[in-house]
Amino acid sequence: MRNILIIGAGRSSSSLIKYLTNKSVEESLRITVGDVSLESALAITKGKDNVSAIKLDVFKKEDREEAIKNADIVVSMLPARFHIEVAKDCVKFEKNMVTASYISEEMKSLNAEVEAKGLVFMNEIGLDPGIDHMSAMQVIDKIKDNGGKMLLFESFCGGLVAPESDTNLWNYKFTWNPRNVVLAGQGGASMFIQEGTYKYIPYHKLFRRTEFLNLNGNGKFEAYANRDSLKYRSIYGLEDIKTMYRGTIRKVGFSRAWNVFVQLGMTDDSYTIEDSEGMSYRDFTNLFLGYSPSDSVELKFRSYLKIDQDDLMWDKFLELDLFNDNKKVGLKNASPAKILQKILMDSWMLMENDKDMIVMHHIFGYLMDGKKKQIESSMVIKGDDQVFTAMSKTVGLPVAMATLKILNKEITSPGVQLPIRKEVYQPILKELEEYGITFVEKEVPYLGYNPNSIKG
Amino acid sequence: MRNILIIGAGRSSSSLIKYLTNKSVEESLRITVGDVSLESALAITKGKDNVSAIKLDVFKKEDREEAIKNADIVVSMLPARFHIEVAKDCVKFEKNMVTASYISEEMKSLNAEVEAKGLVFMNEIGLDPGIDHMSAMQVIDKIKDNGGKMLLFESFCGGLVAPESDTNLWNYKFTWNPRNVVLAGQGGASMFIQEGTYKYIPYHKLFRRTEFLNLNGNGKFEAYANRDSLKYRSIYGLEDIKTMYRGTIRKVGFSRAWNVFVQLGMTDDSYTIEDSEGMSYRDFTNLFLGYSPSDSVELKFRSYLKIDQDDLMWDKFLELDLFNDNKKVGLKNASPAKILQKILMDSWMLMENDKDMIVMHHIFGYLMDGKKKQIESSMVIKGDDQVFTAMSKTVGLPVAMATLKILNKEITSPGVQLPIRKEVYQPILKELEEYGITFVEKEVPYLGYNPNSIKG
Repeated sequence: MRNILIIGAGRSSSSLIKYLTNKSVEESLRITVGDVSLESALAITKGKDNVSAIKLDVFKKEDREEAIKNADIVVSMLPARFHIEVAKDCVKFEKNMVTASYISEEMKSLNAEVEAKGLVFMNEIGLDPGIDHMSAMQVIDKIKDNGGKMLLFESFCGGLVAPESDTNLWNYKFTWNPRNVVLAGQGGASMFIQEGTYKYIPYHKLFRRTEFLNLNGNGKFEAYANRDSLKYRSIYGLEDIKTMYRGTIRKVGFSRAWNVFVQLGMTDDSYTIEDSEGMSYRDFTNLFLGYSPSDSVELKFRSYLKIDQDDLMWDKFLELDLFNDNKKVGLKNASPAKILQKILMDSWMLMENDKDMIVMHHIFGYLMDGKKKQIESSMVIKGDDQVFTAMSKTVGLPVAMATLKILNKEITSPGVQLPIRKEVYQPILKELEEYGITFVEKEVPYLGYNPNSIKG
Repeated sequence: MRNILIIGAGRSSSSLIKYLTNKSVEESLRITVGDVSLESALAITKGKDNVSAIKLDVFKKEDREEAIKNADIVVSMLPARFHIEVAKDCVKFEKNMVTASYISEEMKSLNAEVEAKGLVFMNEIGLDPGIDHMSAMQVIDKIKDNGGKMLLFESFCGGLVAPESDTNLWNYKFTWNPRNVVLAGQGGASMFIQEGTYKYIPYHKLFRRTEFLNLNGNGKFEAYANRDSLKYRSIYGLEDIKTMYRGTIRKVGFSRAWNVFVQLGMTDDSYTIEDSEGMSYRDFTNLFLGYSPSDSVELKFRSYLKIDQDDLMWDKFLELDLFNDNKKVGLKNASPAKILQKILMDSWMLMENDKDMIVMHHIFGYLMDGKKKQIESSMVIKGDDQVFTAMSKTVGLPVAMATLKILNKEITSPGVQLPIRKEVYQPILKELEEYGITFVEKEVPYLGYNPNSIKG
């Protein structure tokens, strides 16, 4: 028997645990799921074979060491900032490790030791980051192997609600950590390069600088730029590329309305509001508008943000009950972001029968045999239900597959890494197809980065 | 002879040194000016009596300790972040200390020791902070002493160019540290309270939420909110006040145009731009605009920011040469803020005969004998020349006066403090009048905070 320790029994662990337990007999796996809440660990393991639940607080050194010592490989599904203690123990006890998070500086600094001990620390092997890297590298390597030179790479991903469950004016529901949605794009300017020209967008303009996307048969989408697209030039081996852009997908119209929250300052998490607990939603909204002895909050809002009363966008804010004087914030000395999150959670939670949907779309421009060519590659995945969501499947399955392949020594290159090696992405993308996670790839005429399809 | 050590030979030290050297004979003062640049220290002390210049790097422990040991009182005119090493030595060697900077957390943490040793560490005794505190507290204490209850306090200050030297479309020149002007308002939302309602303005809206000010005989001004006005409630002993607002004064129209830099992201100091050195001003501007294979930088700029071509604001940007393709940035891997500062310094430096002007304006609303009353108090000071600027006088003179009064034991209350005690502000404001630094005070009808003078 090989022991797999999974730390974290959150939403995205459900598909991961299902995959591994289904394979547990043929692969001789014994799975332990540890969570700070024993109830969560029990709930997610209930009725499954060869899996046990334990209470595990990763900040309790002895418990953490004990659990890691007993494992052959450790999967951390904790929030990214909690990985490092687990990672240090994995180095100490010489265990391989898998996470779906971006490689932090601290994690990176373990690389020399990890390599020296011949360990595999696979990170960024969920959806985004994860499937994005793998599906992009597969096409990039194919183009390069055939003698092509990459000119352009644009990549978009979004966690949305499936069309049949799309029942609000925002065309959006929380299918993932609501806090991350509220804080999305913060922490510095977004940066990318288009046709050789660097571009920088400050946070407060991010949601007004969207790009449109037409995904055949799946409707029209928009995307706003992710934080730092420039660093992917070196990660993907595309140092000289003319266009490099990564973005987050929403349904058209979301960003224009979301921008209103940004403009008001409602997404700010850097300070707390005095006396927030007893405030109404209306009081909260009024904090960000000029004082007037007579004008209504509604009129001040529309005037400040230049919203016509017959603009559909206006109805989006009414739908959220932003001007309700009876609903109370009920959070003590909370930041604007925390209060906004609460208001949105009133309206944007998935209902019992709602399904989520993941959309990913890549554009590759390249030069081959003197001709400019372009490939588009798209993936659209819907959730099965509220447990096996599209998000859970696309995050959990690649993590699970990587874990088993490392255990089975199919993935062996040591180091702190992300899945950009053929050794990793080829077998995993292939196996993902069995689970319906597939990309539709097609050649299209070369357009370069040409925002309005202007003929040159 | 009493030894005064002045650390920092920058602009604002000129009036400080002049005042103290003028008093050096009658007061038996020996003044030492230390600066990391001996040239600067020599230049500012040249031809004056009882003053000597030394090279002093405050990060060289031995030199610093030696200089402080020999002094009876230490004045630090260094940037605020450098005070703390000096302050710790002043505690160690039991020397009084004076600065014109905001009290940092580190400085505040010395208070117990400073009090225990009976030392006076006077901070925030320049212009703003400084004269603002003293002139405000004088009126507030008078109102309270007469049995009044404060309802409203608004305070505005600005370092501007004198009307006769006001020669550009921005009605602004650098009369103070240009970097601080470029970064003004950053680091979090501005917060204040108006008629009992909390208000929070994010940085990217700060310059669109100005208040107008009419200063009799001195024209129309505007003000944008300073960072945290709320904390002045406890500092000034006005915990229950309904309106508390502090702002920075500019000529009308400045903020609307400055907002364009904020919107573009040009004031961001948090990242550096790749290959900035060889970029033209035009390239720099284009970094913040969408890519287009054909549209001009000018048209993209106007379209993005919704500026009509016959709007005077447009000419302000042309005046700055923002679209010049020949002028080079010439700064390696610089932040947007550093590059913007350079572009502005081309246009906004004071000419040889230019004079600066300081404007300060307070509004006090209060209840006395059942009636609501209002007092306005204003100060307008022009510079004599490029050395004895209004900024140098209004910063340096109160520092100098406080230094001498501490030395002469006229100011004795120990502790890390700012000038809000009568013991401090009364004699200093009185003496400032001899130097033409006076406030014009008048009673006006009570308006409260009523942005549009709407009759209730």
